[in-house]
Amino acid sequence: MRFFIPLIFLVNILSAQENSDSTIIRKIYSYNLTESKSYSNLHTLCKDVGARLSGSKQAEKAVAWAKQAMIKAGADTVYLVPCMVPHWVRGTKEKCYVSGNSKNKLESFAVCALGNSVATPTQGITAKVIEVSSFEELEKLGAEKIKGNIVFYNVSFDKTFVHTGGAYGKAVKYRSGASMAAKYGAVASITKSMSTADNDFPHTGTMRYDSLVPQKIPAFAISITGAKRLSTLLAQNKNLELYLFSDCKTLPDEPSYSVVGEIRGNEIPNEVIVVGGHLDSWDLGEGAHDDGAGIVQSIEVLTAFKKLGIKNKHTIRAVAYMNEENGTRGGKSYAAMAAKENKKHIAALESDMGGFTPKAIGVDAKKDTLLYYKKWQPLFEPYFVFIKQGGGGVDVGELEKLGVPQFGLEPDSQRYFDFHHTADDTFEHVNERELELGAATITSFIYLLDKYGTYKK
Amino acid sequence: MRFFIPLIFLVNILSAQENSDSTIIRKIYSYNLTESKSYSNLHTLCKDVGARLSGSKQAEKAVAWAKQAMIKAGADTVYLVPCMVPHWVRGTKEKCYVSGNSKNKLESFAVCALGNSVATPTQGITAKVIEVSSFEELEKLGAEKIKGNIVFYNVSFDKTFVHTGGAYGKAVKYRSGASMAAKYGAVASITKSMSTADNDFPHTGTMRYDSLVPQKIPAFAISITGAKRLSTLLAQNKNLELYLFSDCKTLPDEPSYSVVGEIRGNEIPNEVIVVGGHLDSWDLGEGAHDDGAGIVQSIEVLTAFKKLGIKNKHTIRAVAYMNEENGTRGGKSYAAMAAKENKKHIAALESDMGGFTPKAIGVDAKKDTLLYYKKWQPLFEPYFVFIKQGGGGVDVGELEKLGVPQFGLEPDSQRYFDFHHTADDTFEHVNERELELGAATITSFIYLLDKYGTYKK
Repeated sequence: MRFFIPLIFLVNILSAQENSDSTIIRKIYSYNLTESKSYSNLHTLCKDVGARLSGSKQAEKAVAWAKQAMIKAGADTVYLVPCMVPHWVRGTKEKCYVSGNSKNKLESFAVCALGNSVATPTQGITAKVIEVSSFEELEKLGAEKIKGNIVFYNVSFDKTFVHTGGAYGKAVKYRSGASMAAKYGAVASITKSMSTADNDFPHTGTMRYDSLVPQKIPAFAISITGAKRLSTLLAQNKNLELYLFSDCKTLPDEPSYSVVGEIRGNEIPNEVIVVGGHLDSWDLGEGAHDDGAGIVQSIEVLTAFKKLGIKNKHTIRAVAYMNEENGTRGGKSYAAMAAKENKKHIAALESDMGGFTPKAIGVDAKKDTLLYYKKWQPLFEPYFVFIKQGGGGVDVGELEKLGVPQFGLEPDSQRYFDFHHTADDTFEHVNERELELGAATITSFIYLLDKYGTYKK
Repeated sequence: MRFFIPLIFLVNILSAQENSDSTIIRKIYSYNLTESKSYSNLHTLCKDVGARLSGSKQAEKAVAWAKQAMIKAGADTVYLVPCMVPHWVRGTKEKCYVSGNSKNKLESFAVCALGNSVATPTQGITAKVIEVSSFEELEKLGAEKIKGNIVFYNVSFDKTFVHTGGAYGKAVKYRSGASMAAKYGAVASITKSMSTADNDFPHTGTMRYDSLVPQKIPAFAISITGAKRLSTLLAQNKNLELYLFSDCKTLPDEPSYSVVGEIRGNEIPNEVIVVGGHLDSWDLGEGAHDDGAGIVQSIEVLTAFKKLGIKNKHTIRAVAYMNEENGTRGGKSYAAMAAKENKKHIAALESDMGGFTPKAIGVDAKKDTLLYYKKWQPLFEPYFVFIKQGGGGVDVGELEKLGVPQFGLEPDSQRYFDFHHTADDTFEHVNERELELGAATITSFIYLLDKYGTYKK
């Protein structure tokens, strides 16, 4: 007996150890770093599908791709959630160069039309440029100085933000500066790219016209290199004239889909934990970081549960939302479906900040709720991941309106706005291990959400 | 009076707030992200000095550069600590191709001689290749199979390590596998590069011959792409012969220097906190991540203290150690000097893991000591930095023998071994913000070490 009891005891300890959260999480990370398909899936999405702006043929191809990927990932049910999406097309390559009698005549700048922008007239626009560093400066100049000219918003990112998303949040209003410029009679607007990188890629992104300003003027983004050069030229010659051309247009809305893959819960199948990213991308580049990464990571959550034999109590759903970039129609139609179906969403997690090394899981919650999740932080410390107050994301934000708790993967943000919305957002700029660590982090957090449930008062 | 007291009280609160640790640390991060010279210093070191292997002309140039940089950084004393360094030279470009009657004749592979290796005979070496995945496999094959052949160590990094330094630590012994191969009569060794990247850059690095094995054979590293291809060819044809050529050699030791810049302490000048990296690099690439980053970050510590008007109690020294890569002579001579001088080193911090986003400050300490520093972690959480058990580094390791507490900057390691010791370790692969955040992290930690001192029992 003296030997028997300790042996049983030993077996129990080993078994507890084997199934401890830290052991399971270690297995999730090891699986992702050695066997997962997230990197090869991202390669296919970037190279075989490519850029996939809502309403485009490639977006249609992306839907078919995601459906197959979800099936291969081991989802027991895969289905599409329909939505009507905007269909904006860029048209031919935009033009921007110095015009008129300047000695810099024909010097050109890397620009792109901003999503949702109207085109220039067929013959283009030639006008002087008024450089401003804020809306306040624009307002001070007023119609007298602005009328008939191009407004150039030369606003830089605030570098002191450690999370570059904060700098983006502060500057991004100038991407929709066209209406404010039009109010004072401007003929076009050019906005310095929303970027941390000092290079010649212009950054596209959605812009909105203010419904109170009837005049819609063409809206462009200029690369950082271009903005610096333009500012230098303007300092030398205030009468410098620019030529601008674009022939982008908005076509009628198109039918499209978000793609859902789920593993039914073993104990509480009517309660759903949803994880997702967005399937659409801008038309430049390959949508690798934005948000191919979030898509392949979300799909990988399903595979990891299957491969590691983790039995989920709740239903776990991976969702590839359509149309995050210029309409959130996928997020909205998914939330509308969720509001009607005979199931309850208990948590929604989004990955839409790039395939970089994970730094935190953000919890969109007040202090006492945060403390509940913060208790899991020691499990993530071996992977250098914090649990902290933070956001969900644009797509799951639609579920927030139904009261669903929000979570977000927060990867390191230092390089995100180097690539965001540019032709340079390609597969080659995603590091395999960083992508995989992100997938492992969200899978581990969902494992804990599924096992222990969300915070209850 | 009713108004007077609250006003005083308010002033005190504001003043306390202004000088709180979190405020000072926020200033240190903001300074680094907006004004610091670390990125432009790294550019100069990489582009104007370049590769700087110990004993080379460029290493001499690097010493002069570091001296000037320390003076510009605001050090009140700058001096050189002499040491004799090994002087190994690579010679002409190495050659490795399929020889003999194979249909793959003349197919070549990207290889490089490993540092400290002897050369091949002038006419090169032509021999069959025996592929092994471990020393155990080599020993089992024994002299019968190995004699007269080239040994190919095809050992991959263990991907499950989250900190890639762990994988490096496990695999790096094969870089010195030449002597073990020579013991069984091999004529040369080729080691798969110590790398996480799937590309065609061979990774150099130091190798040592075992003094118990008299025969010194040439030691090469092969790129990951090359190793995969070679393994495939060997699977098809076990009799495949390789031609290898190198003419590297070891010249007599050369005099060189580590560079020290210090700011004298205001209260306890005889106690020293030292921060450093290594000034030498391998001869391929530009030594940008390894360890240009650590050098410019250490120099930036001095500038930040000066610019922000932080009065250091202890003497703070930035040290650019010579010869970390193939001899640690700089680390040794610095420690020898430290042992003799009339000062006491209370802490030594090293940055030699690349200019990537900081994830932690590693404390080389047991539990109760670690808890002392761990209390500072909340101050670093806004910057996503942990305080955790970890190491110092090769250079400060020499001070450890004198009982000096060791600390290390731990940046994210996912990309470090993509570039380490290759021609691709260039300035272009260092992200400005990531480099600056690393500098801010070590400056902030040194600020706390200086203010509160090290752990005392």
